[in-house]
Amino acid sequence: MVRERRSRRDGASALRPAPAFVLVEPQLGENIGAAARAMLNFGLSALRLVNPRDGWPNPAAEAMASGASAVIEGTRIFGSLEEALADCRYVLATTARPREMLLPVLDPAAAADALKIRIERGETCAVLFGRERAGLYNEEVARADAVISIPVNPSFASLNLAQACLIVAYEWARADGREAFAGGLDEAVPAPRADFERFIDHLFGELDARGYFFPPEKREVMERNLRVAFTRAGLTEGEVRTLRGVIKALTRGRKK
Amino acid sequence: MVRERRSRRDGASALRPAPAFVLVEPQLGENIGAAARAMLNFGLSALRLVNPRDGWPNPAAEAMASGASAVIEGTRIFGSLEEALADCRYVLATTARPREMLLPVLDPAAAADALKIRIERGETCAVLFGRERAGLYNEEVARADAVISIPVNPSFASLNLAQACLIVAYEWARADGREAFAGGLDEAVPAPRADFERFIDHLFGELDARGYFFPPEKREVMERNLRVAFTRAGLTEGEVRTLRGVIKALTRGRKK
Repeated sequence: MVRERRSRRDGASALRPAPAFVLVEPQLGENIGAAARAMLNFGLSALRLVNPRDGWPNPAAEAMASGASAVIEGTRIFGSLEEALADCRYVLATTARPREMLLPVLDPAAAADALKIRIERGETCAVLFGRERAGLYNEEVARADAVISIPVNPSFASLNLAQACLIVAYEWARADGREAFAGGLDEAVPAPRADFERFIDHLFGELDARGYFFPPEKREVMERNLRVAFTRAGLTEGEVRTLRGVIKALTRGRKK
Repeated sequence: MVRERRSRRDGASALRPAPAFVLVEPQLGENIGAAARAMLNFGLSALRLVNPRDGWPNPAAEAMASGASAVIEGTRIFGSLEEALADCRYVLATTARPREMLLPVLDPAAAADALKIRIERGETCAVLFGRERAGLYNEEVARADAVISIPVNPSFASLNLAQACLIVAYEWARADGREAFAGGLDEAVPAPRADFERFIDHLFGELDARGYFFPPEKREVMERNLRVAFTRAGLTEGEVRTLRGVIKALTRGRKK
């Protein structure tokens, strides 16, 4: 009861559905706390952490989040990005600059519109934020459906983690407050990431068994390129099942 | 000379005309420095202070502004808000909540559009930000042409000074660069349909040879579903080649 009342005071109860923010290997508890505050300022509360450097719970995060402690209390911790995204159907990655990865690049406003459509359909969505200095690695960005690029001054681009969260959260609140634009998006509801990953594992396993990934030093790039192409399709659960059937069919011998 | 070169490296030289940010009686140097960084991230550099509590120059502001020191070096200090606004033709005041003052209330995006029109006409414009805790007094807000209200979560509204500056600066950059931002465009150029069709033929042929399309009356639907999933990916020429390699790999036997 006490907890319930407290949550209400914390401004995190009865919030509308919203995307989760996933911080990948954040280093400083202060930054986690500041991110939690930035989120709650704009009505977001689902915070996920992948391998926070200083473990969890983190007193520095709690101290910095003062007033947003409901976000900290509800924070979910994961041992890998894959696990953190298992239930997500649409994932965006924030990057300091777009990379050559053939992913769509959205500004924060367009990203928020894209999230809004999916959240309204009841889909779990996530926005990825990288490490304080190193950001997201390419193989992490490759798990996203699209990239969010914040249009900063090219000769002074120094947004910190909480500031990046603030901008994306701000645009989310703006989009959430507008009437959702229903047109323009196909009806396909993407499969949860966990299903997609099992398909990717299946495909890569069969390719590996046939010596496809050659030479070995190209393996990483080859895997990433394949992953990006399939991610961009936004495969549904049914399509993922179909493609696994396709792999099974292709890997068995020809009929006599 | 040295100074000039340094300014250039600081990312504040050769910036486009933009509004000035006026901080009224800011208390902590750290907040002034953080505001300077927030501004420069989005291409603003004209900072004015009205009676900063700890005087000027302020070592804490300089330390926090690291990288944005050109903004700090160019900061102008005034003994009254009236003096700070003397040359301004259009002034907006940020407030935590709109007050009953019969002033137009703009959200940050509308405010940025309004500023943009005036800046393009060559008018000096300013945005006022209040004290860390007490904000702007009514008589200060009354000097503005309109009020900027940032739409925060009503049950958790705790934007600090630098965060408020960040949001307004971000919207300014968006308004200022409306035509310029190149994002929103998918970088992937889809393959010509002919290439795509050869890939589909290849896939269907191999599946057919393995009895995948069964029962026969389902063939049409199965083919269509597969085609739709791959079409949605908007595959590039390179990706189409890659996927044909994948089919070849999958259809050969496992390595001994």
